[in-house]
Amino acid sequence: MSAELASLMAGTVDVLPAGGLEAKLRRAAAEGRPLRVKLGLDPTAPAVTLGWGVVLGKLRAFQEAGHTAVLIVGDYTARVGDPSGRSRTRPMLSPEQIAANEAEYLRQFSTFLDLERVELRHNSEWLAELGTAGLLELAARATVARLLERDDFGQRFAAGTPISLQELLYPLLQGWDSVAVRADVEIGGTDQRFNLLLGRDLQEQEGQEPQVVMTHELLVGTDGVRKMSQSLGNYVGLLDPPDEAYGKTMSVPDAAMPQWLRLASGLPPPAVARVLDGLADGSLPPVEAKRTLALAVTTRLHGAAEAEAARRRFDQVHRARAVPDDVVEVVLPTGDPVHLPSLLVDVLDVGSTSEARRLIAGGAVRVDGDPVTALDMPRRDLVGRVLQRGRRAFVRLSEDRG
Amino acid sequence: MSAELASLMAGTVDVLPAGGLEAKLRRAAAEGRPLRVKLGLDPTAPAVTLGWGVVLGKLRAFQEAGHTAVLIVGDYTARVGDPSGRSRTRPMLSPEQIAANEAEYLRQFSTFLDLERVELRHNSEWLAELGTAGLLELAARATVARLLERDDFGQRFAAGTPISLQELLYPLLQGWDSVAVRADVEIGGTDQRFNLLLGRDLQEQEGQEPQVVMTHELLVGTDGVRKMSQSLGNYVGLLDPPDEAYGKTMSVPDAAMPQWLRLASGLPPPAVARVLDGLADGSLPPVEAKRTLALAVTTRLHGAAEAEAARRRFDQVHRARAVPDDVVEVVLPTGDPVHLPSLLVDVLDVGSTSEARRLIAGGAVRVDGDPVTALDMPRRDLVGRVLQRGRRAFVRLSEDRG
Repeated sequence: MSAELASLMAGTVDVLPAGGLEAKLRRAAAEGRPLRVKLGLDPTAPAVTLGWGVVLGKLRAFQEAGHTAVLIVGDYTARVGDPSGRSRTRPMLSPEQIAANEAEYLRQFSTFLDLERVELRHNSEWLAELGTAGLLELAARATVARLLERDDFGQRFAAGTPISLQELLYPLLQGWDSVAVRADVEIGGTDQRFNLLLGRDLQEQEGQEPQVVMTHELLVGTDGVRKMSQSLGNYVGLLDPPDEAYGKTMSVPDAAMPQWLRLASGLPPPAVARVLDGLADGSLPPVEAKRTLALAVTTRLHGAAEAEAARRRFDQVHRARAVPDDVVEVVLPTGDPVHLPSLLVDVLDVGSTSEARRLIAGGAVRVDGDPVTALDMPRRDLVGRVLQRGRRAFVRLSEDRG
Repeated sequence: MSAELASLMAGTVDVLPAGGLEAKLRRAAAEGRPLRVKLGLDPTAPAVTLGWGVVLGKLRAFQEAGHTAVLIVGDYTARVGDPSGRSRTRPMLSPEQIAANEAEYLRQFSTFLDLERVELRHNSEWLAELGTAGLLELAARATVARLLERDDFGQRFAAGTPISLQELLYPLLQGWDSVAVRADVEIGGTDQRFNLLLGRDLQEQEGQEPQVVMTHELLVGTDGVRKMSQSLGNYVGLLDPPDEAYGKTMSVPDAAMPQWLRLASGLPPPAVARVLDGLADGSLPPVEAKRTLALAVTTRLHGAAEAEAARRRFDQVHRARAVPDDVVEVVLPTGDPVHLPSLLVDVLDVGSTSEARRLIAGGAVRVDGDPVTALDMPRRDLVGRVLQRGRRAFVRLSEDRG
């Protein structure tokens, strides 16, 4: 396998038909023309998750190999929506919302993709002119039984969950997009396998050479269980600030780490293998592997400097929150509320109450790890708690039981 | 029940919702406006069968009661057809074929309907402008499960017979026709029940008062088994010449007679009841009942005089063909071929061979009931057969075994 082919095949689950990509690449090289590589997006929600990174990375790999990335915005289908209101996954959107979503998508995609070299298309270009007759003719191309073979349709049908006829038409429209742009390759997640294959059928019926279908693993969310998605809230957004991206990644369960390292870290395969090996033989503690992952993810979104800074801040906060085992216990002076600057002078060796005030204002004073801002605090909020100054000085406050 | 209501309810299987027709009639009378009564036709085949007589008769009853017959020609849907070629029931038609079929339909409908007072509409008027978006929105109005409740779809789905998505869309388009013409009532066969009810749903969603649905029994074909249809060949056509209409009706199995008398004879209910009673108590032989039916059907299509003539001709032929039980057997003279004029002189008392030639030329000479035209016939075509002159003179020809 050539290095180019290897990089293009990386991370795929299905490449159909077998040998199809090699043949297309050979032919393109012989004819001196780039392949047209299609990726579709529905501008139905404003934010993009790290899950997109998988296919966007692949699209960039094609770009880097000199091929044409054809990005298709489903503006027409988003506009139609589902007026029955039965489907929550297909709200009806105004043209303004769609345009805004599209702009937001592209802004976020630019993290991963050279948009200057992308062929940007909108399916309103060809779907509007299809018309009643064209859509009816398209609807004759697929049978109900065939469409119910798609996993999610089949499961919903079996479970008695309503499936509108409109939903059954969408795969055909998506396939028609492939005909309209004469796609050589279409990339997507494994959940798109059926739709991508339908595109092949339609191209063949229209006398085109059918596209090669490349599906990719779906990135699991920060819950480690379900597909990463905006609606489930288990996602890292491409626009999440560095601290958020780093922190969310640190919250991913250990079991999901290997997949995140492969799909989301952006690390080269040998580096990923080293981390996975270290985890497997126990030489690398999971928390260290996760720090590597979080740094890599944040670097991908914000660059090395921002990521490094995010890591430092994360460590500060989390180490600062770590209370030593051997905390000295001190008795709270009488009075309620308690005057915090005086307390700091009394029990944590602060030079003066005015210095104590400065420390409080600067967030360097914490109770049970949370920075405090008030100068006077009720006794009940202090009894039994750990008072902390900066990163190193701790005392536990107790009631005088004498 | 008023006389008008009784005549409008006659022969219906379902009138939905219960009491709906009465309410519509009352309202129409109060508002001094006629009801809009929809009947749809697909101009996909050139000839119309007697089966149409049932709903056309009903539409005329509405006309006679002062209501508006709205005849909808499915020209748009006929034009789309099924380009996959998978469905034999939906061939793709050229605009010329569709126009020709429509003209033919109307010519034939004029037997039953006052076309001058019909509001003739074409669904291309509103379906073309629906467009991709409109059709997608319409497709959101029905679920797959709901459409598979339609008997034929359900059976085909269960049997694994392909159903294209296009076919599932047709009931919605047909329902949309009801919205477009603001139908108060739609009439059809029982096989249209589902589609007619879907029209109600769409009207309701569009803020219209939903139509009353009236379904009618389907006339069984001349085979007495399956629905009368052109494609099955088991039909009487509205344009069949009198002899053919009469003869085909005489071929209907006895078991189907009661239904034909009710649905196809055009006889008033008391006359139908008399025939059915006679059949039930044995006072009327089935063949006589069938002659009454055949005369009534032919009268409906061609008027009393033509029907009476057809009956006479039918009787002549069939009585002429009837060979008596006691036919005399005569021995064929030697020689091969046999000279027919001489044979007629020898065995059937014809005066001369020239008279015999005239009889042959006039079709008055038959062998086993079929008129002969040749003067010389091979012996093997005569041995064992009945030679007949006119209506009354018969001999059976045998070989001399002496």
